[in-house]
Amino acid sequence: MTTSILQGGLACPAPITTHDCVVIGHGSGGKLSARLIEEHFLPHFRGDALAQLGDASIVSAGGARLAVSTDTFVVSPLEFRGGNIGDLAVNGTVNDLAMMGAIPLYLTVGFILEEGLPFAVLDRVIASMAAAATAAGVQIIAGDTKVVERGKGDGLFINTTGIGMVNPDFRPAPDKVVPGDAVIVSGDIGVHGMTILAERDGIGFEADLGSDTASLHALVQVLREFTGGDVHALRDPTRGGVASTLNEIAKASGVGIELKEDALPIPPVVQGACEMLGLDPLYVANEGLLVAFVPAEVAGAALEAMHAHPLGRRAAVIGQAVREHPGMVVLRTGMGGTRIVDMLPGDQLPRIC
Amino acid sequence: MTTSILQGGLACPAPITTHDCVVIGHGSGGKLSARLIEEHFLPHFRGDALAQLGDASIVSAGGARLAVSTDTFVVSPLEFRGGNIGDLAVNGTVNDLAMMGAIPLYLTVGFILEEGLPFAVLDRVIASMAAAATAAGVQIIAGDTKVVERGKGDGLFINTTGIGMVNPDFRPAPDKVVPGDAVIVSGDIGVHGMTILAERDGIGFEADLGSDTASLHALVQVLREFTGGDVHALRDPTRGGVASTLNEIAKASGVGIELKEDALPIPPVVQGACEMLGLDPLYVANEGLLVAFVPAEVAGAALEAMHAHPLGRRAAVIGQAVREHPGMVVLRTGMGGTRIVDMLPGDQLPRIC
Repeated sequence: MTTSILQGGLACPAPITTHDCVVIGHGSGGKLSARLIEEHFLPHFRGDALAQLGDASIVSAGGARLAVSTDTFVVSPLEFRGGNIGDLAVNGTVNDLAMMGAIPLYLTVGFILEEGLPFAVLDRVIASMAAAATAAGVQIIAGDTKVVERGKGDGLFINTTGIGMVNPDFRPAPDKVVPGDAVIVSGDIGVHGMTILAERDGIGFEADLGSDTASLHALVQVLREFTGGDVHALRDPTRGGVASTLNEIAKASGVGIELKEDALPIPPVVQGACEMLGLDPLYVANEGLLVAFVPAEVAGAALEAMHAHPLGRRAAVIGQAVREHPGMVVLRTGMGGTRIVDMLPGDQLPRIC
Repeated sequence: MTTSILQGGLACPAPITTHDCVVIGHGSGGKLSARLIEEHFLPHFRGDALAQLGDASIVSAGGARLAVSTDTFVVSPLEFRGGNIGDLAVNGTVNDLAMMGAIPLYLTVGFILEEGLPFAVLDRVIASMAAAATAAGVQIIAGDTKVVERGKGDGLFINTTGIGMVNPDFRPAPDKVVPGDAVIVSGDIGVHGMTILAERDGIGFEADLGSDTASLHALVQVLREFTGGDVHALRDPTRGGVASTLNEIAKASGVGIELKEDALPIPPVVQGACEMLGLDPLYVANEGLLVAFVPAEVAGAALEAMHAHPLGRRAAVIGQAVREHPGMVVLRTGMGGTRIVDMLPGDQLPRIC
C-alpha cells in the first residue's frame, strides 16, 4: 500500500487553513467537511436532531420509529462501468438506512437537470433507479425535477431521501463499539472510487474495474441472523473510504482501532492503480461495502454467513477494537511497523458519489 | 391584466416540439414539465406511488400514516427581498405537507455547494433555514452536503424532504372538488415571482416588493377549524402560479373552474410590473399563498377566519367550480368576456424557486 498521502508522518497532519468561501475539499468527507458542518451548520441547529452531525436520524411519528436518511449525488461522470448516478443514488440511501439496522421502505427523489442533458442519458439513469429500487424492495414515493441553465449544473444531480422502519432490538451504532470487537469488511476495498477515477481520467485500467454499487440491507439481515443480533456498529465506508469511517467510529466510541495490513482485501488492480497515482486505498470510496463491529466470539459465524452471500464472498476480519490509543486508528504493517491512519484533511477524490 | 402570453387565442395553444435533450422549459411546472414526467419518469415507475405524478405521497409505516414530500430549490438569486433560498426551502416543503392536510414534523436538507460560495452567504441561508424551521415547528433531522467545482453549480442548491402526520379526518385532495365549490386564495397573487424577477433584472420596482415566503400550515389549521374540516382541496400555487394549479385541480376533479377577474387580489405593483414585462400574474409563482376549494356554504366562515390570520388578511373568493367546460379554467373578464386560462407550454420565469 502506498503511503504518499500520509508521508508527513504521525505528528504532522496537513495544516487546515481558514477559508472565507467553499473550496472543493469541503465536500471530501474528511476534516474540512467536518469543519464545514461544525462551524457553519451546527451553530444554527443546536437543538435539532441534526446536531448529531449525521445524514440520518431515528425519529418517532404516530407511534412508529422511523429511520430517515438523506444523500445528494454529484458523481462525475454520470455513467461508469458497473453503474450510473441513478442506481448509486438508490443504493446509497438504502444502505444508509440499512446501516442503522432499519428495513428500508420508501425513497423520494429530487433531480436537478442541466439544460442540454441528453434524454438518452436521463432515460438510462431513471431505468437504473427503478431497477435498483425494485432489487432493494423499496418504493419511490415522490419526485421533484428542477432545470438549471447550461453551465449552472453538471448534467444531473440527484437527491434521495429514505424512510425505513427501525427494529428496537437491532440498533447498531458507532458508540456501541467496545474493546475486543472484531472489525469485518464485507468485501474488496476501494473499487468504486478507482472505477470512477479510471473512467474520468482514462487511465487505462478501466477494463478490470467496475463499481461495487449495491444495496446491502439483505447482507445486513444475514449478519444480524447469524450473530444473534449482536452487531455493535455498521457503516458503509463511502466518501472518505474505510479510513474515514473507522476514524468516526473510533471517535464516537472512544476505543482505539487496530488494522492488520496483511488482512485488508485490496484487489491487485486497485492496489496497482493506487500506487501509480499515489493514493491510499483506505481513503478511496466504496458503494457496496460495509464495515461491521461484532464481538470476537461471533466473528467466525458472521464471516461464514457473509461468505455465503453474493455481496459478502470476500468478507474478512481486518482488525479489532482495542483499549489503547482511544479515538485513533492504527495500521500494523506487514513489516511489523505501525502508522496512524488519520482523517484526511481535504479531498482525495472529489465527486466520487 | 395583460394577456400577451395567451394572445394566440383559444384554439391555438403554442406548439410543443419534441426534444432530444433537456431544455429550460422542462423546469417550468407547465406542459413541458408534465411531459418530462410522463414520458421519461413514469414509464419506469408505473408500479410506484410516484405514478401518482406528485412530489408528495401518503404512505404507511409501522401503523402510522405519513405524508412525505420532496422539493429541490434552485432559485436565483440566492438572496432576495423578503427571504432567501434557505427559508424558501423550509417553507416550500412545509407547505407541501400542509396542503395534504398533514401536520409537518420533520425535514431533511441536502445541499449542493459550488466552490467559491462565500461563507457569509451560506451562513445567512442556514440561519434563515433554522429560523423558518423554528417558526414552522418542524425539526431538521438530517443533512447532507456536497461540493461541486466552480462552474458546475450556481452557488447553492437545496433539497428539502418533509415528513408529516396525516389526519384521516382531514385529507383535502384535488379530486375531491365538486361543482359549486368556492375557490379561495389566501392573499395577493404573483408577489414572490415578481420579487425574484425584479431582483434579478434590476427593473426598479424592487422597493415595493418582497417575497411572500411563509409556512402556511397554521393558516390551514384555521381554515380547517372554521369550515368544520370541510375543505375539499388545498394547494400552494408555486411554480406555474395560480393558473397552473387550478388547471391541475380541474383536470384531477373533472370540474370546470370559473374565475372572476375583478375578484383577483393582484397588488398594483405586481399588475404594473407584469404589464410592463408582458407577463400574466396568474402564471407567476407564489410562496406563501394557498388556494382552497370549500363548499359555498362555508366559504363566508372560511374567509372571515382567514382574514383574522396574519397570512390571510387579503384572502378572497376568486371564483367557483362549475359543471361546464370540465377540466378547463375560464376567466370572466371585467368587460364581460371570457378567456381560457390554459397551462403554459413552457417557461414564464425560470428558477423562481
